[in-house]
Amino acid sequence: MGNTLAYKILQSHLLDGTLSPGNEITIKMDQTLTQDSTGTMVYLQLEAMNVDKIQTELSVAYIDHNTLQTGFENADDHAFIKSVAQRHGVLFSKPGNGICHQLHLENYGKPGKTLLGSDSHTPTGGGLGMIAIGAGGLDVAMAMAKGTYSLTVPKVIKVELTGSLRPWVSAKDVILYVLQKLTVKGGVGKIVEYTGEGVKSLSVTDRATITNMGAELGATTSIFPSDENTLKYLTEQGRPEDFTPLAADADAVYDEILKVNLSELTPLAAMPHSPDNVDSVKNIGSIKIDQVAIGSCTNSSYTDLMKVAAILKGNKIHKDVSLVISPGSSKILSKLAENGALADMINAGARIIENACGPCIGMGQSPKSGAVSLRTFNRNFKGRSGTLDADVYLVSPETAAISAITGVLTDGMSCGRELPDIPSVSFSFNDHFIIYPEGADKQNTEVEMGPNIKPFPRNTALTDEVRAAVALHAGNNITTDDIMPSDSRLLPYRSNIPHLSNYCFEKIDSQFAARCKELGSCAIIGGENYGQGSSREHAALVPLYLGVKFVLAKSFARIHRSNLINSGIMPLVFENPADYDDFAIGQQLVIRQAKKQIQEGVVVVNNLDNGKEYKTLTNFSELEIQMILCGGKINSINGAK
Amino acid sequence: MGNTLAYKILQSHLLDGTLSPGNEITIKMDQTLTQDSTGTMVYLQLEAMNVDKIQTELSVAYIDHNTLQTGFENADDHAFIKSVAQRHGVLFSKPGNGICHQLHLENYGKPGKTLLGSDSHTPTGGGLGMIAIGAGGLDVAMAMAKGTYSLTVPKVIKVELTGSLRPWVSAKDVILYVLQKLTVKGGVGKIVEYTGEGVKSLSVTDRATITNMGAELGATTSIFPSDENTLKYLTEQGRPEDFTPLAADADAVYDEILKVNLSELTPLAAMPHSPDNVDSVKNIGSIKIDQVAIGSCTNSSYTDLMKVAAILKGNKIHKDVSLVISPGSSKILSKLAENGALADMINAGARIIENACGPCIGMGQSPKSGAVSLRTFNRNFKGRSGTLDADVYLVSPETAAISAITGVLTDGMSCGRELPDIPSVSFSFNDHFIIYPEGADKQNTEVEMGPNIKPFPRNTALTDEVRAAVALHAGNNITTDDIMPSDSRLLPYRSNIPHLSNYCFEKIDSQFAARCKELGSCAIIGGENYGQGSSREHAALVPLYLGVKFVLAKSFARIHRSNLINSGIMPLVFENPADYDDFAIGQQLVIRQAKKQIQEGVVVVNNLDNGKEYKTLTNFSELEIQMILCGGKINSINGAK
Repeated sequence: MGNTLAYKILQSHLLDGTLSPGNEITIKMDQTLTQDSTGTMVYLQLEAMNVDKIQTELSVAYIDHNTLQTGFENADDHAFIKSVAQRHGVLFSKPGNGICHQLHLENYGKPGKTLLGSDSHTPTGGGLGMIAIGAGGLDVAMAMAKGTYSLTVPKVIKVELTGSLRPWVSAKDVILYVLQKLTVKGGVGKIVEYTGEGVKSLSVTDRATITNMGAELGATTSIFPSDENTLKYLTEQGRPEDFTPLAADADAVYDEILKVNLSELTPLAAMPHSPDNVDSVKNIGSIKIDQVAIGSCTNSSYTDLMKVAAILKGNKIHKDVSLVISPGSSKILSKLAENGALADMINAGARIIENACGPCIGMGQSPKSGAVSLRTFNRNFKGRSGTLDADVYLVSPETAAISAITGVLTDGMSCGRELPDIPSVSFSFNDHFIIYPEGADKQNTEVEMGPNIKPFPRNTALTDEVRAAVALHAGNNITTDDIMPSDSRLLPYRSNIPHLSNYCFEKIDSQFAARCKELGSCAIIGGENYGQGSSREHAALVPLYLGVKFVLAKSFARIHRSNLINSGIMPLVFENPADYDDFAIGQQLVIRQAKKQIQEGVVVVNNLDNGKEYKTLTNFSELEIQMILCGGKINSINGAK
Repeated sequence: MGNTLAYKILQSHLLDGTLSPGNEITIKMDQTLTQDSTGTMVYLQLEAMNVDKIQTELSVAYIDHNTLQTGFENADDHAFIKSVAQRHGVLFSKPGNGICHQLHLENYGKPGKTLLGSDSHTPTGGGLGMIAIGAGGLDVAMAMAKGTYSLTVPKVIKVELTGSLRPWVSAKDVILYVLQKLTVKGGVGKIVEYTGEGVKSLSVTDRATITNMGAELGATTSIFPSDENTLKYLTEQGRPEDFTPLAADADAVYDEILKVNLSELTPLAAMPHSPDNVDSVKNIGSIKIDQVAIGSCTNSSYTDLMKVAAILKGNKIHKDVSLVISPGSSKILSKLAENGALADMINAGARIIENACGPCIGMGQSPKSGAVSLRTFNRNFKGRSGTLDADVYLVSPETAAISAITGVLTDGMSCGRELPDIPSVSFSFNDHFIIYPEGADKQNTEVEMGPNIKPFPRNTALTDEVRAAVALHAGNNITTDDIMPSDSRLLPYRSNIPHLSNYCFEKIDSQFAARCKELGSCAIIGGENYGQGSSREHAALVPLYLGVKFVLAKSFARIHRSNLINSGIMPLVFENPADYDDFAIGQQLVIRQAKKQIQEGVVVVNNLDNGKEYKTLTNFSELEIQMILCGGKINSINGAK
């Protein structure tokens, strides 16, 4: 019986455990990446671990989230990260270089390697045939400190691609189709592996668009084989020596199979307010649009933007539309500037903003009140654009560009225009935005801590009786954006948990933070897929700061569950999901003999208000039990010392 | 006796009054411009004036200040301005087109014409031989409604230029030298007219840099002759037909003369925290720098940026420096993209941000805590960068670029490098960012008012007895930034006076707003040059909203004085400046028989706390008296109806 590509790579990195779904394993982690909005916490934690030099083959600290710099906080964070990177041997990518995932694909990703990133879209690297996983900051700090990562072995879904995409249909439509079929929780506990002859028709950046948005499936990661297209891409980037051919065995066995005929796909859009709320552009119809935003780690590759330039060339953006474009990297921007494509965009009336995450994370370019905004991004959660009543549709760059001209949502297939082929291109090496940590020097480099950078909160060891009052009764698919909003107002405070805590669950229940402070010790009740979305650890650290002891939900999203455990907050799953309805804000809950129950795997929660007992499942691994008992990962390391 | 160029143009536009220093005249206003941060108020006022179609030859509404869009407010403001522009026949320049002054120079400015702009740097147009004046929003709204503008005739200073600039010395150094000589109040009540054979060595954009920063002298405006260089510039912009040769008469008589030998100038810098705190780069020395910012309406021309690109080409930005570049217009950005210069900048490690005002007005790119930032901008008031403890130095693009490479403040003249000549260039016409108000249609265009757009405050007619308590005792050179801070937090609220009012004088006295609300009716005591800096009307509208009845100061900056009168707040000048010392916060003041005294030109202020009387001068023109009596300009128009 043959192996999947995912398991082959995991097997080659296996340090501990047995590679079988549901088992906990520890693997060698070759590379890590961080971005700045999660990175400040990662590097505070790395400093707290008291290591000298990192143990990975390569670790890169990117700055791409907080680049607007509307106050001193952002630049202070950049300086802090730069100083810690120098101390421990981490490459530092200066602001202006571009978006971490795009940059990592261009410069550092290698087929067959493992990558852990403190950003949920780290699976972008799967487009190069890597096992690239998004994780909470503490896990990334640990991976740097020890060169390892522990995870529960996921199942593997095979997505078998046949045919090839027609003009005006692109990789974005493939992943939107998969999201329509599998939904935002269809990938939980799974790796999505793309195979079939259709794979050959997709470039590495096409594949990266697809693996990137695998995050929206809730998948652990997504992966494509490494083949001649991979070699072509690495050669274009000036590093053919990094190529290794990789594929699943022909007789590999998968846990699930989804077949996609690329030839049958049409332009799709994810409608407000979820990436899996997908329909065809044709069905949605010619709705009037106010804004179009092109860019983000999902769709800002050279080819994406060349297509956009080709569509815009010689045309004029509709008078009622603001079109804003943010290229993925300085290399791409520079190339577009050299070959005339950037001028074509500008001459059509496009706004060019810095190559960074920008509007995708709500950092700028919020549309007007009640606007319809088409975006080539990966998430359209309500309010994420910075405008609460805006309707955001996720589309391909082709659909975005043609719609910017017509002023209405437009299906390119029926617009009567031809799409030119984009010739391939070679990039010259340029590391002018990179600072190398030559002779990583902990002794002689001082940590640069601006006044907005505060220590992260630490939990205490689990007590034998846990009393907590219900502070929130939340619905299904709660996102980490819901838990810890991340807009232009709050992103500059990612290094300041006390400040952020005032805004926890703000959009869902503006009294949440005040209530927690009043209750002292509290619990959250959640529905299905609690904690989906961004990997931000702040969605666990802030509840920890506010006194949350456990979250009791129908199910959890993977990264957030880990982040809770890392913070010493128990993620408990209802044995009987219908029990969810019995809970209400203010009820007093108690867990007795907590330590013993945690070790036994079933935890009974007593509801003192209705006198009933509720069975909950933990599914904790040995390591996780250890962390819960110690009050989080940092304590468990310090305890082991 | 011959005429100055300034008086020739004023004479040709004279509608009422006699052209002699100190007299009030009314002139025909050919053109107006607005930007968005003052513009929302202008167009609210225009709407309140109930006109159908504007009376100027050309009026343009630019969007260049609030382009970060970190919330819905900015885009709502843009939509509001776009709708009002369409209603009344105003050209609308979409965000992304660039900075108003650069765009107006490129596309609409004409030698010999008059231009009124709701931005203090409107005198940029003087580089083309225009009389271009910055004014409060209400004056600009009036100019649109009636095609006229009233002002007190300024004196004229002659700046006689000889010689020509050496390499690494540029127009920015000329105006920094003039600022060093004349100080930030040296231009109050004056027009600065540049003449002499040295003029020929300066291009239109060089001249525009100089007239732009004439605003920092406090001058009414600055002007250059229109000559063969003017024709060359207009030809490059594709509009040679707009050229008219213009110069002062050979025997023109001036009120003051300053001689500047261009050949003797060296690279200069304005040190923290005032544009007139000037010394040579050499004297200041090689201080370590953290940030370099190139752009703004002062130094973002094609030639400026081509020089920067030439200096950066093949070099790497210093690792400890963040270099950020914002080109002045979409035309310039497009040209830099076409000719490879933009790629040269990016390849050196420069960050490219949107062509807008951006960091110059504190909208983004705030440096880190305690940073040294070199900027090619026009103002370095404390805190304007968004980082209160940063030290901002104003320098030329050449000095900025070479210093970004070395990492320390560097005098290009001694760096041993040659500066290449920048060849001239032709721009193709492109109006893809312009919306023409075809058939300006008030009836069929609805005003689009987002929820953040609130009505502006209106004063009531002057009462015969004015009682007011001293709410603030301020020092010299209070800027409009001090009165109404304008940082990234507050700029999005320029359409919302009630919200802004909470931050009035925040940096000087955090209790000011609360104190005003408590006192009810209040007064401000000021020193010399009260209200210098930006033209923002909000520095008068917000005090009006807070109940300020009069400001009693040693002297006033011109635009702010007008804005106070337009709002019905009395600007009173101490007859005896030493009286200033007698006042203190909380003292009760009263003006008796206010109406009669205002009409007689001397107003006695009784200080009830010390029992003394203080004589103050008004210097009000007839029109100004009318406005004060009615409670502001809008009331005076409505009363006249």
